[in-house]
Amino acid sequence: MRQAGRYLPEYMELRAKYDFLERCYNPEIAAEITLQPLRRFQFDAGIIFSDILLPLHKMGADLHYRPGVGPQIDNPVRTPEQVRALKNFDPVRDLPSVMEAIQICNEKVDVPILGFAGAPFTLACYLIEGGGSKNWIETKRFMWNHPQAFTELLNRLADAAGSHLQAQVEAGAAAVQLFDTWAGALSPEDFLQYALPASRRALSYVVDAPTLFFTRDSGTFLPFLPDVGSSAIALDWRVEMQYARKMLGRIPVQGNLDPIALHAPEEIIRHKVRDIIKQAGPRGHIFNLGHGCVPTTPISGVATVIDEIHRWSWEK
Amino acid sequence: MRQAGRYLPEYMELRAKYDFLERCYNPEIAAEITLQPLRRFQFDAGIIFSDILLPLHKMGADLHYRPGVGPQIDNPVRTPEQVRALKNFDPVRDLPSVMEAIQICNEKVDVPILGFAGAPFTLACYLIEGGGSKNWIETKRFMWNHPQAFTELLNRLADAAGSHLQAQVEAGAAAVQLFDTWAGALSPEDFLQYALPASRRALSYVVDAPTLFFTRDSGTFLPFLPDVGSSAIALDWRVEMQYARKMLGRIPVQGNLDPIALHAPEEIIRHKVRDIIKQAGPRGHIFNLGHGCVPTTPISGVATVIDEIHRWSWEK
Repeated sequence: MRQAGRYLPEYMELRAKYDFLERCYNPEIAAEITLQPLRRFQFDAGIIFSDILLPLHKMGADLHYRPGVGPQIDNPVRTPEQVRALKNFDPVRDLPSVMEAIQICNEKVDVPILGFAGAPFTLACYLIEGGGSKNWIETKRFMWNHPQAFTELLNRLADAAGSHLQAQVEAGAAAVQLFDTWAGALSPEDFLQYALPASRRALSYVVDAPTLFFTRDSGTFLPFLPDVGSSAIALDWRVEMQYARKMLGRIPVQGNLDPIALHAPEEIIRHKVRDIIKQAGPRGHIFNLGHGCVPTTPISGVATVIDEIHRWSWEK
Repeated sequence: MRQAGRYLPEYMELRAKYDFLERCYNPEIAAEITLQPLRRFQFDAGIIFSDILLPLHKMGADLHYRPGVGPQIDNPVRTPEQVRALKNFDPVRDLPSVMEAIQICNEKVDVPILGFAGAPFTLACYLIEGGGSKNWIETKRFMWNHPQAFTELLNRLADAAGSHLQAQVEAGAAAVQLFDTWAGALSPEDFLQYALPASRRALSYVVDAPTLFFTRDSGTFLPFLPDVGSSAIALDWRVEMQYARKMLGRIPVQGNLDPIALHAPEEIIRHKVRDIIKQAGPRGHIFNLGHGCVPTTPISGVATVIDEIHRWSWEK
């Protein structure tokens, strides 16, 4: 996660030249950023450079990425009327650059390219709150005060995210991941009533490729995750791999190294990578970080992880 | 949690007159703040007004609560030498005001007064990072690069927290809670190696009263929590009560209403309170929020929670 990004000096060069939305909307630049980490490291797949908030932008959100702060939406949705006023989203019409970037990458490299989208609840959080938040108070107030309008919003966002995932598959993405980063702010009752059915609806759009579902609080919601209908479950780093295996049964899993562990001494990184591989067992495991690479990540840490994964063999 | 605080206008009046450390260190003011919510609501217990970082202050941390930002420590611990240079902490000598405040409250009201302390890993986070953090990168770097010094630090913080809890019990606290707010930043391996044994060491100091152990990610670490040696486990709001019951066996539990749910319409609050009580069953459950009250909490929301709890009877 965040395979491309600020920990790479070659990314920082493009970052200095083009603003964030330009990097996302120009397919040549997005493809170039996607390919940067694949030149440095022997990754088994590339992740398309994009952002989960782009569909919101096209639905009418006044989205800004201002230096030094996270994403901001200057016209947050706070009423049922504002939900109804959101524009419809058609991925092929509204975000052709993402699909073009996938095509460019597939022409240039042989590893599979993966696409992604933000899950409906997580998109609703940004849309209602107007940016990141510690407690998502406005989102939850909207949810409890306007349950019908909130469900309507989630359904529209599910249709947007789901059609966007399927469009990426049609453009050549080998698999797609749905990110429900903020679903962990919810109690289990609200997760089951709102976030989970909306993510299931989004994932149901994908008919031609495997899907992955990530929540940042996968350990907490482990017993419910099989119900989302994803081909595989992406785990954050706080859940023990062997426990997740036990709880999830035969569903393939992805994960789950603590992204901050890439700052650790080499031997500790190698030990942690081996431990996760051993706990996951020989089948149905995609090694990954348990969350995104942070900007201070040492390049040597990424190289150590890749090297240790490739050293491993279940045969020996 | 945060039973007293910024959601109460009478607290805001004292907040305007005295700075944060003065409110903590003056036993008359701390007792008055503790009693404020007990005058408004029929709570079954009062929580002493204090702060988990006070022992760090007395161990040499240059601690500040500046308006508009969270707590800051201007001389963060970044080397093993700085760990060794920390002063010893003796609760009776260094924080007599906390114990005096407990005594004052016990003289004025009949409900039990509860004490608390920060868990060693959570204290180490603030001490090393120098304040709050999203990813706790400096803390984890210290932990992996200096595992011995980090363990030594945790042991010293466990001795500080543990002796502080027992001193509060000796001063009249009816029970004490240990808060490992940030332990959820750790992978299970690091939680089991560092945070959990240190919290167990702290809790072992308490010999005369029941203890409660809270992590903000109680759902993720549920299978490990019985090992901490606490009389009861305090659950955050993201774990389903009946699932926690199943996983924890006979250990009493505390919790776990989403604190943001106090912003919801009355009927939703009542439904959520009843649901938690029913799931927890008739024995060994202390109703509480799953995290602290936020400043925007409506007073009417707190009143509804208390009323619904007191309306409930297992007899009917």
